[in-house]
Amino acid sequence: MKKVRVVVIGASGYIGGEAVRLLLGHPEVDLVAVTANENAGRRLDEVQPNLRGYSDLVYSKEWPEADAYVLSLPHGGAMEVVPKLKGKVVDLSGDFRLKDPAVFERYYKTPHKAPELLKQFATGIPEINRGRIRESRLVAAGGCFASAAILSLHPLRELAAGRVIVDGKTGSSGSGSKPGEKTHHPFRSTSFFAYETFHHRHTPEIEQASGLEVLFQPHSTPLVRGVFTTSYVPLKRAMTDDEVLALFRQAYGNDRFVRLCKGTANVNHVKGSNFIDLGVAAHGTTAIVFAAIDNLVKGGAGQGVQCLNLMFGLPEEAGLLAPPAQP
Amino acid sequence: MKKVRVVVIGASGYIGGEAVRLLLGHPEVDLVAVTANENAGRRLDEVQPNLRGYSDLVYSKEWPEADAYVLSLPHGGAMEVVPKLKGKVVDLSGDFRLKDPAVFERYYKTPHKAPELLKQFATGIPEINRGRIRESRLVAAGGCFASAAILSLHPLRELAAGRVIVDGKTGSSGSGSKPGEKTHHPFRSTSFFAYETFHHRHTPEIEQASGLEVLFQPHSTPLVRGVFTTSYVPLKRAMTDDEVLALFRQAYGNDRFVRLCKGTANVNHVKGSNFIDLGVAAHGTTAIVFAAIDNLVKGGAGQGVQCLNLMFGLPEEAGLLAPPAQP
Amino acid sequence: MKKVRVVVIGASGYIGGEAVRLLLGHPEVDLVAVTANENAGRRLDEVQPNLRGYSDLVYSKEWPEADAYVLSLPHGGAMEVVPKLKGKVVDLSGDFRLKDPAVFERYYKTPHKAPELLKQFATGIPEINRGRIRESRLVAAGGCFASAAILSLHPLRELAAGRVIVDGKTGSSGSGSKPGEKTHHPFRSTSFFAYETFHHRHTPEIEQASGLEVLFQPHSTPLVRGVFTTSYVPLKRAMTDDEVLALFRQAYGNDRFVRLCKGTANVNHVKGSNFIDLGVAAHGTTAIVFAAIDNLVKGGAGQGVQCLNLMFGLPEEAGLLAPPAQP
Amino acid sequence: MKKVRVVVIGASGYIGGEAVRLLLGHPEVDLVAVTANENAGRRLDEVQPNLRGYSDLVYSKEWPEADAYVLSLPHGGAMEVVPKLKGKVVDLSGDFRLKDPAVFERYYKTPHKAPELLKQFATGIPEINRGRIRESRLVAAGGCFASAAILSLHPLRELAAGRVIVDGKTGSSGSGSKPGEKTHHPFRSTSFFAYETFHHRHTPEIEQASGLEVLFQPHSTPLVRGVFTTSYVPLKRAMTDDEVLALFRQAYGNDRFVRLCKGTANVNHVKGSNFIDLGVAAHGTTAIVFAAIDNLVKGGAGQGVQCLNLMFGLPEEAGLLAPPAQP
Repeated sequence: MKKVRVVVIGASGYIGGEAVRLLLGHPEVDLVAVTANENAGRRLDEVQPNLRGYSDLVYSKEWPEADAYVLSLPHGGAMEVVPKLKGKVVDLSGDFRLKDPAVFERYYKTPHKAPELLKQFATGIPEINRGRIRESRLVAAGGCFASAAILSLHPLRELAAGRVIVDGKTGSSGSGSKPGEKTHHPFRSTSFFAYETFHHRHTPEIEQASGLEVLFQPHSTPLVRGVFTTSYVPLKRAMTDDEVLALFRQAYGNDRFVRLCKGTANVNHVKGSNFIDLGVAAHGTTAIVFAAIDNLVKGGAGQGVQCLNLMFGLPEEAGLLAPPAQP
Repeated sequence: MKKVRVVVIGASGYIGGEAVRLLLGHPEVDLVAVTANENAGRRLDEVQPNLRGYSDLVYSKEWPEADAYVLSLPHGGAMEVVPKLKGKVVDLSGDFRLKDPAVFERYYKTPHKAPELLKQFATGIPEINRGRIRESRLVAAGGCFASAAILSLHPLRELAAGRVIVDGKTGSSGSGSKPGEKTHHPFRSTSFFAYETFHHRHTPEIEQASGLEVLFQPHSTPLVRGVFTTSYVPLKRAMTDDEVLALFRQAYGNDRFVRLCKGTANVNHVKGSNFIDLGVAAHGTTAIVFAAIDNLVKGGAGQGVQCLNLMFGLPEEAGLLAPPAQP
Repeated sequence: MKKVRVVVIGASGYIGGEAVRLLLGHPEVDLVAVTANENAGRRLDEVQPNLRGYSDLVYSKEWPEADAYVLSLPHGGAMEVVPKLKGKVVDLSGDFRLKDPAVFERYYKTPHKAPELLKQFATGIPEINRGRIRESRLVAAGGCFASAAILSLHPLRELAAGRVIVDGKTGSSGSGSKPGEKTHHPFRSTSFFAYETFHHRHTPEIEQASGLEVLFQPHSTPLVRGVFTTSYVPLKRAMTDDEVLALFRQAYGNDRFVRLCKGTANVNHVKGSNFIDLGVAAHGTTAIVFAAIDNLVKGGAGQGVQCLNLMFGLPEEAGLLAPPAQP
Repeated sequence: MKKVRVVVIGASGYIGGEAVRLLLGHPEVDLVAVTANENAGRRLDEVQPNLRGYSDLVYSKEWPEADAYVLSLPHGGAMEVVPKLKGKVVDLSGDFRLKDPAVFERYYKTPHKAPELLKQFATGIPEINRGRIRESRLVAAGGCFASAAILSLHPLRELAAGRVIVDGKTGSSGSGSKPGEKTHHPFRSTSFFAYETFHHRHTPEIEQASGLEVLFQPHSTPLVRGVFTTSYVPLKRAMTDDEVLALFRQAYGNDRFVRLCKGTANVNHVKGSNFIDLGVAAHGTTAIVFAAIDNLVKGGAGQGVQCLNLMFGLPEEAGLLAPPAQP
């Protein structure tokens, strides 16, 4: 079978790098080019020495024609590039995740440059939107915190009795590959702090997908990889752990990348993989849902590849099944 | 002036070790003995090599008479020892924090062995109970999570409109000095997980001190030192950040170990010290309070020394003012 | 083609777990059983939750007949089991790495229980012993520090002018999955220390394979995965970086799992993979060789699978080519 | 007694910040001003929130007259500032550590701007140069790696039979407070690598102070605080551990900040303190000396304060005796 020819646009950062890693190991994909602005002209494996021995690709500024483009550009980059692309597109940024340009502008503090495209993009979280992803040319893969929270809330959306609190925690790789004060090793290794209280960009993304009112509060933890969310859901009626778990089994029973349990999840068990581990608990009219993902895989490049597989009629798990390692 | 003669009972672990460290540097205290069961007969600085050069003390099983005893025993130890002690007592464990023996039994799964003493113990959180601590012979210093949450909720207790959610995060030193699966370095370094959902022992301690209904959910983070709590408080009326901050200033304006700000706190800034940094935010009828402490100091030995100072009429901050370090 | 039927004996620990992970993803292998003493009767993915969704295997105490056995038992275990096995054997422990029973006894403080087998075992480091591994029924995969050092010294063994100093550094996973004082997270995260001065068990293994006199000093570093060695080699004549690099290219030019450069290596680039990254430098009559491996893969299970592939005439890299991730 | 009036010039970074922390807690010092270029006009405790509650100082660009100046400027800064200063000076940078301007130029790649001052500066390592420090107006405190190595070699300098190899390991705080690629948390947390092979600036500093030929190879480890050095010393005659330890006891028996033992040291035990822990071992004609220091204290600001105390006739340990904490 002819392989799908894919270009990664913006392949210098962590999520772009993960896209490259996954696509290089994908049995049905031919990674034909990688682009980057600052690193144009350098070898891929000079910037990502982990990949020495896998590819002779050199970063370019321009991209060739291809069957599909995976975009991992800084905020605002995708909305400039997507209008120029003809093949299928999986965007890993936040540019096309919100449907409403006014909501976009409120949270991103800038008008959208391609508002007419917003409604054409399918929400790229296969477990809740598989059908539309299969038929779409344009897909916006869910954000890291947002995907964890959306998949935590989806099975409970009919039962929630009011505002949901999502307390999120992220590792430092979520801040990207550019060094900064908050990710300086001497500081971050001994820090735990909150940020963007009451106005994080993933809030409207979670609300849009879940239909629930959400208070989302993110925190920084000294992990490298991993997003963990704790969702506190007020219920319309008292439920037991088992009842909640049954709802989740019904929702995700056939999903290869969802693993369910009672009690907590742990980012340790999913790191490097496309899994979301969901743990549930309930007491009276409160349910708590714990979600653990690798922010760069299920919260980034892996989910993008999962969408890509659907868009090309490939097995959804193609290229994504290497087992996560312990410890 | 004659120094206060103090014994640390149970001085092998992390909190006991911190008590020793602080008391060795305390200008008004003479640390006269340290006890330990397993380590009896060994030099203090053999078990705690950081303290080489500060003391020639040797662990004993028995304790001499003294003016005060600081207890840092495993759960259940203090309730056996306290009835035998004649001087003043600061207990750093959970044995005497709850007033109601029935609540104790529900959360600790065992009947209390000295229930008649429970009401004699003062709650050892000076910022909310200074007067009683000064007059008490017996003080139970507040637990780590509990102290962070109690001080987060205290100024809002009249304004809270319903159940408060406290999402807690702790470093690995909170699990003590005995190695275990959850604190095994290869595992813990890449883990984030929740535990004791709906039944952590600090829940009734927070409820008792704040008078509020509380849902407390703790999590493990790969810090060594530090407890961080995020408290979500429903308010009776809409408030601004500034209004909430003003309430906190009113409550803690004269407290040497409370530092206030708008926005987040960070465990990085308090590690090694007796500070609690509290950050506040509000939006509509929701307030969020962020608290950061060093779990072994303000959440353990430091708070105990602060209580001890009050009990002996010493300056509250004596021996506790070494500035925390960065990074 | 019929798959190779493999059993992992001792599959609870970190290296055994990595063997399971690699064999589950190996296209030519059928993992038919996993054994463990303490965990017998439990599901594999209960002990190793990272593997949920990959296997329904349950740990047994006994093993079925198979084409090959990969052993990852505590020290002393393999020498009791190997005499009972009929298929091919790859031992990942130190039991069969030394040829001379007297040297074994000196370093392991106990007589060998199957000394007659020692010479039948091939040294399991393919890059220096591929031919014998292919023909052997019994292979002892090289130890973590030893493999890093042996591959660092191999190309220079004719040029070394005297005793070589190997300064080694290991992450905490090298101490295994059982919690202990030295791997307790609060301690290890802020520790750097040396151990086993002048008598580490890898010393004779390095000397045996390199033919050189070696002073090997290991250290513990707060990494999870990774072994790094710095080898100081006195040379018979002055050499340049380029000359040394040329020697290494000559030795390893065709080796899929050796990556060479001038200057340092970094464990970051090899984690999770079977690579050894070797960096070289020279000044006057001194060469320094830097080696970085994942101690559980190239220093453990991965090297074992590499040997297994050779023993069954499979491509040497089968099952080992998933690219390492960044960060 | 009148306190010594001190200014810290360059008080934004980690070592400058530690100088401030130590001087704020120093019983005989009055910290009268802090300077910084980028942060001029900002409050000290805005840049160093750990110090909230200790000082109302504001960074200035200029400095007032004072009894002493502690300088913690980037490389090249001190040689421009020192000629303008009239009081006593402790420089914590590398600008004035080497005596020979030609050696300076070779290692720092730039001519020295105040070469006439080089010989006026005393080497600021009290344990080997106490007398001269007491009498000097200008002192250059020893560098982090250099101090660890120099104190490791000093007692053996008459017995060394040839070139010494010093294998050094540093935490990330050694790279300073400015974020960079090598200290980016996602990268550094899982990295171990070497750097500056054969030409690190501490090499001539070690050689100058020890009189020995030294091969010094530094490495980066994912600690925050701590420098550890392993020094391999060829001896003129065979020695035992006890003989080597006796030599060290003779050299350092009265030194408050040197702690000796057989076997390894550990950075864990010294972090936050001015101690150097030295561990020794010997076998045949080889001695190994292990040194552990906190790079920002004994390898930086603490050593500077120790020198300052000597220069003003204060007790050498004044302001430096807070016990280090565990864990």
